[in-house]
Amino acid sequence: MSNNDLPKGESASLIRQPLLSSSQRSIVNSTSQVAIVGANVCPIESLDYEIFENEFFKQDWRSRGVVQIFQYICMKWLLCLMIGVIVGFIGFCNNLAVENLAGIKFVITSNMMLQRRFLLAFVIFFASNLILTLFACIITAFIAPTAAGSGISEVKAYLNGVDAPGIFTVPTLFVKVEIDVRSTLAGPWLARSSLFIRLSIIGSITAVSSSLLVGKAGPMVHTGACVASLLGQGGSKRYGITWRWLRFFKNDRDRRDLIVCGSAAGIAAAFRAPVGGVLFALEEMASWWRTSLLWRAFFTTATVAIFLRAMIDVCLSGKCGLFGKGGLIMFDAYSASISYHLADVPLVFILAIIGGLLGSLFNFMTNKVLRMYNVINEKGIICKLLLACLISIFTSCILFGLPLFASCRPCPPDAVEPCPTIGRSGIYKKFQCPPHYYNGLASLIFNTNDDAIKNLFSMNTDNEFEFSSMLIFFIICLSLSILSCGIVAPVGMFVPIIVTGASYGRMVGILVGKRSNLCHGLYAVLGAASLLGGSMRTTVSLCVIMLELTNNLLLLPLIMMVLLVSKSVANVFNANIYDLIMKAKGLPYLETHAEPYMRQLTVGDVVTGPLQVFNGIERVRNIMFILRTTTHNGFPVIDEPPGLEAPVLFGIILRDHLITLLKKKTFLPTPAANNYDVLRQFSSDDFAKKGSTERLKIEDIHLTEEEMGMYIDLHPFTNASPYTVVETMSLAKALILFREVGLRHLLVIPKIPGFTQLSFVHGDCRYRPW
Amino acid sequence: MSNNDLPKGESASLIRQPLLSSSQRSIVNSTSQVAIVGANVCPIESLDYEIFENEFFKQDWRSRGVVQIFQYICMKWLLCLMIGVIVGFIGFCNNLAVENLAGIKFVITSNMMLQRRFLLAFVIFFASNLILTLFACIITAFIAPTAAGSGISEVKAYLNGVDAPGIFTVPTLFVKVEIDVRSTLAGPWLARSSLFIRLSIIGSITAVSSSLLVGKAGPMVHTGACVASLLGQGGSKRYGITWRWLRFFKNDRDRRDLIVCGSAAGIAAAFRAPVGGVLFALEEMASWWRTSLLWRAFFTTATVAIFLRAMIDVCLSGKCGLFGKGGLIMFDAYSASISYHLADVPLVFILAIIGGLLGSLFNFMTNKVLRMYNVINEKGIICKLLLACLISIFTSCILFGLPLFASCRPCPPDAVEPCPTIGRSGIYKKFQCPPHYYNGLASLIFNTNDDAIKNLFSMNTDNEFEFSSMLIFFIICLSLSILSCGIVAPVGMFVPIIVTGASYGRMVGILVGKRSNLCHGLYAVLGAASLLGGSMRTTVSLCVIMLELTNNLLLLPLIMMVLLVSKSVANVFNANIYDLIMKAKGLPYLETHAEPYMRQLTVGDVVTGPLQVFNGIERVRNIMFILRTTTHNGFPVIDEPPGLEAPVLFGIILRDHLITLLKKKTFLPTPAANNYDVLRQFSSDDFAKKGSTERLKIEDIHLTEEEMGMYIDLHPFTNASPYTVVETMSLAKALILFREVGLRHLLVIPKIPGFTQLSFVHGDCRYRPW
Repeated sequence: MSNNDLPKGESASLIRQPLLSSSQRSIVNSTSQVAIVGANVCPIESLDYEIFENEFFKQDWRSRGVVQIFQYICMKWLLCLMIGVIVGFIGFCNNLAVENLAGIKFVITSNMMLQRRFLLAFVIFFASNLILTLFACIITAFIAPTAAGSGISEVKAYLNGVDAPGIFTVPTLFVKVEIDVRSTLAGPWLARSSLFIRLSIIGSITAVSSSLLVGKAGPMVHTGACVASLLGQGGSKRYGITWRWLRFFKNDRDRRDLIVCGSAAGIAAAFRAPVGGVLFALEEMASWWRTSLLWRAFFTTATVAIFLRAMIDVCLSGKCGLFGKGGLIMFDAYSASISYHLADVPLVFILAIIGGLLGSLFNFMTNKVLRMYNVINEKGIICKLLLACLISIFTSCILFGLPLFASCRPCPPDAVEPCPTIGRSGIYKKFQCPPHYYNGLASLIFNTNDDAIKNLFSMNTDNEFEFSSMLIFFIICLSLSILSCGIVAPVGMFVPIIVTGASYGRMVGILVGKRSNLCHGLYAVLGAASLLGGSMRTTVSLCVIMLELTNNLLLLPLIMMVLLVSKSVANVFNANIYDLIMKAKGLPYLETHAEPYMRQLTVGDVVTGPLQVFNGIERVRNIMFILRTTTHNGFPVIDEPPGLEAPVLFGIILRDHLITLLKKKTFLPTPAANNYDVLRQFSSDDFAKKGSTERLKIEDIHLTEEEMGMYIDLHPFTNASPYTVVETMSLAKALILFREVGLRHLLVIPKIPGFTQLSFVHGDCRYRPW
Repeated sequence: MSNNDLPKGESASLIRQPLLSSSQRSIVNSTSQVAIVGANVCPIESLDYEIFENEFFKQDWRSRGVVQIFQYICMKWLLCLMIGVIVGFIGFCNNLAVENLAGIKFVITSNMMLQRRFLLAFVIFFASNLILTLFACIITAFIAPTAAGSGISEVKAYLNGVDAPGIFTVPTLFVKVEIDVRSTLAGPWLARSSLFIRLSIIGSITAVSSSLLVGKAGPMVHTGACVASLLGQGGSKRYGITWRWLRFFKNDRDRRDLIVCGSAAGIAAAFRAPVGGVLFALEEMASWWRTSLLWRAFFTTATVAIFLRAMIDVCLSGKCGLFGKGGLIMFDAYSASISYHLADVPLVFILAIIGGLLGSLFNFMTNKVLRMYNVINEKGIICKLLLACLISIFTSCILFGLPLFASCRPCPPDAVEPCPTIGRSGIYKKFQCPPHYYNGLASLIFNTNDDAIKNLFSMNTDNEFEFSSMLIFFIICLSLSILSCGIVAPVGMFVPIIVTGASYGRMVGILVGKRSNLCHGLYAVLGAASLLGGSMRTTVSLCVIMLELTNNLLLLPLIMMVLLVSKSVANVFNANIYDLIMKAKGLPYLETHAEPYMRQLTVGDVVTGPLQVFNGIERVRNIMFILRTTTHNGFPVIDEPPGLEAPVLFGIILRDHLITLLKKKTFLPTPAANNYDVLRQFSSDDFAKKGSTERLKIEDIHLTEEEMGMYIDLHPFTNASPYTVVETMSLAKALILFREVGLRHLLVIPKIPGFTQLSFVHGDCRYRPW
């Protein structure tokens, strides 16, 4: 019954054949509205954002009183507040841990270097990196494999309607102990999710601290989405009130909204960029948007920003160990007024074009490397870990070895900070150099990425870095960030791209020299913007994030121009990095934009059969049979009213709801409509969206032979007002409907009744080949 | 045939009656898919954003080659570039003119005051204000009445699908001369639009210069939208190439996209806030949005920003008269780092709550005043002008009189600028005070609004203003901005609200005194944000605009909080100011959000009859009759295929297209389908969207009796894939479809065939009472 064999773009022939051998149906050659339903034929679970208007829904949701609506609205904002505070706290802890872990490592290494014990320094550096990397990879590979990589692609796929198994939870097998411990407090799903968050965060912290060129933004987004999903799902049945208040959120629509807020909070916490976070969620991640969601996302990120501010207030008194005073990665290096003129624009234009080319090259290489790694990773966990070790070893050697060959530069007499820097951060790292000399390359390498960016972005440091070390650093960054992004640890790519881009910009700045009014730090900012634009292909959100990072709005016109140019250039070559990763991971994604060939095809061309439909009052046996033999998530329900010769479309019913009905066993002995008393036997909780691991499968339903012969009245549970299109509608137009309204199922109706067409539009899994 | 009599929320009875007496149709008691079409029954023209899939469209648009698609894409970006440059230039000229006009006035008045010739000073002030106001009002009232008021509501209504007559052009009557002059260059519509822009700008400049408390942001948005509409429409048939390239833009969808870009550019030019402009267009104005539009809008505003930057570069050398060095109204008063702590948050919270209350009060009062003015304005142009004069006289008296009673303060010894200021701008205005004293109230009043805001926002001026003068200034601003907003001139409300809010914030700052760490300038910023939030109810865009105005991102968390709180507080009382104005102007608007009662109603409940339908091959007489006797914009087309007893829905045809068909007179002598040869007689230009004044009306079509008896084959021109919903769909769910896909017509299909329902869902005009 698989329907995957429809070739791309080829017209499916209209299949005329009875669906089932059951005698009560004779659709063939009968007339009128025959429905065609979209269904999902792949293991990835699809989410349904449509308002499911059935009798049950009307009785439950639509009958909400003022108090319940008030509860619902309050809960929405309260949940956003909680997401903001929790994500803010996680983001702060993340930074704190990274700064301290990596800081201690660098301090020890530096001290060894000062004592000229190079080998020991190298061993410490090497071993600590390896241990941290291995730790990150082991917890990821063994316990939370879906946390690997930048989580942005997974979240983007989720918001597009594809719930890949376990992207917000840990697989059941490995968390038995955890569940036992926590099950008194909340349901197992809750425990699994919160474990997932902690693992993801610990993995991210250790990976970032291990000198791999990886970022924390992606994992933070994933974590934020996870927190949101957890909170929306949260609350146990044991605590009546919590459950009462949260029951309205147990559906795909509300959870999607919360996850949008959570992912915006993730970016906001990673970069302390609240507006940028909202815009990133809007521009890059969410497939569906409305103004009220914008406000809630904004509220969430505002909470994050205020919470971070409070935490930094606490840290300013020096209680946070090596955590710097600058406050997260806000590089407010540009409080001074900068000036630029129209004469600088052509140069910046060229920088942006090359940045766009580099961005698309980065995407191309990353894609290749990811696909290669995929092959390696499929060979088992040992291979994954070996790969990670290999990369860690390579990284350590490169990072430690190359600065040894870099030339030492004398400390500038008017340096703003002590030179060489003995401590955590700073522009002037002594490394192997004699006193009063510093090693420019080491200054960049033996710092956290955040500090390296800060150094690169800083003003009045035009003479601190020489071209050769900048070039080496750029090549190191480019290659290591490409190599590191595919390891089995929660690693992002935002920060590596910024570092690489900043070094590229500095390089351009050094090359241009005095021919331009712009300082090298500004070139670094523009370089970072160009590489980000070339790789991520968003404009407004990146622009705002760059502004929030540098805290100078005077840069705005230049950054806007750079982003637009680099994005346009890179678009010629390939897709944005998250789409490439999604493809590499096999996550389906429905693009907003219709491809040209979709304008030539009608929906009638792509539907195929056979169609599985149910009668309004259907025999249990048939339902069991169809559910077992197909993987569709939705089925049309038809009626044969007396006096009409042809069946009539009644609506669409979902697999989940059918399974719930079968589980309750409210069957009828005869095929007569019940008078909706059956509704009282169900509570909204029965049809509420469940956590992915709690979900019942059709295989779990066991019925007696007697029950199999009985009937179910599907009418009260059928969505009686599904969205329908006529078969002559072009695919492009149907796509707009699909995307804009956030549909998962679309009924295709034949133009001319009396001409039976049994066919269906493919569900989520089929969108990619379109 | 009017369908306006459906009471709100009441179920329409299913009407069973024949539509027309023509004998060829017998829908009553017949069966199957009978269509119900949305149609527009009010004089306001509705826009159609749906992809109109008919044979003609397929042949023309869908058959575009690579070159044409390339042309189309290039033109899109080129048009955005042009919009950006033109709007940037207009914005610059606007600022330049205002600064110089108002500046000269203030310089002359100050000089008179210095010479202690108070009466003469008053007369000059009074007379110049009156003349400027009258000039603005006369050109608006006589030539471009639709330019009156803040244009944001009109643009918002347009983007929601309502094209109020003449909002982008000047009525035909008054521009005869202009057309004659320019008609050699371009079409009359073009001339009328460009005249409109110039009038609107001149009106705005003079109104703002006349010391009325009015802003320029609204008119700039209207101008930006107008420029975009003009460019998209532009090009004359005489110049083949221009026309060829622009023909793809002669539809509602592309023009809507351009107008979104134009309105974003308007905000960007008014506040030099490119990101804020994009977000304002997204959050407040556009009903429909997608990512690629976001990028084009961003590109447009980036162009504006770069262009303005270039112009300011030119002005820095002092060639722009009294135009300041600060560069437009970028109040970069906060380049220094500011600090605030959690302890300040509760106070700011209270400020935001009161700001929200004030904002809703402002909306309430403005609404009342506007409705009162509407009554006065309806009495004729003389009344309009008298009203404007009265307001101008009142304003002049208040502004000149009150500072005379304010106390003089000694100049601070450590003042950063010469005290008292003799010149254009500055904090210390001497007014009537003795030497080395200044008048705080006069310092605020005898400046342009921009300078007043700059003064209020400035740091380290905590002691410059005393509480009493701040209170007086606040009351003046609040009352005058409410009184001025309804006069017949292009006047905005953005800047008045900022001034009022800033004075409110300063007042709070003075009251709080030393109990807070925040400086008074910061309070002014937060006060402005709270009043804006309370009045306009947007969050993200206002936040970014405030940041771009003040150029300090450290304020972000506080501004976010203030905006969210004030918006939430104000939402309790009334709608946002633009919605209120839209209502007062009678512009229909379809909200995104479904009202609770819509969940209880189905679309079947609100449809009403009788339905006007056409046969696939229809007699010309019937078409003429229905078009003349109804005002609907769309009609369903039905077919009666042989062998079927019931008619079948074929699609929907628009009034405009029917009129085009009638005008071409490609009639058939017999009711037989033509073999689509008729398509060759039409070019895409025939069906292209025309300027509102060029449009043919049904009254312009005159046919002979013989022609009336002939037939038209409507099939090739009928949209064969309209969006349809079943009658049982709830109104709330249909609304989502309507809004998200940007529909104007929605076909309602009966659930059970064989039960004829002749009814229709109301078009645009009916959405308000829903």
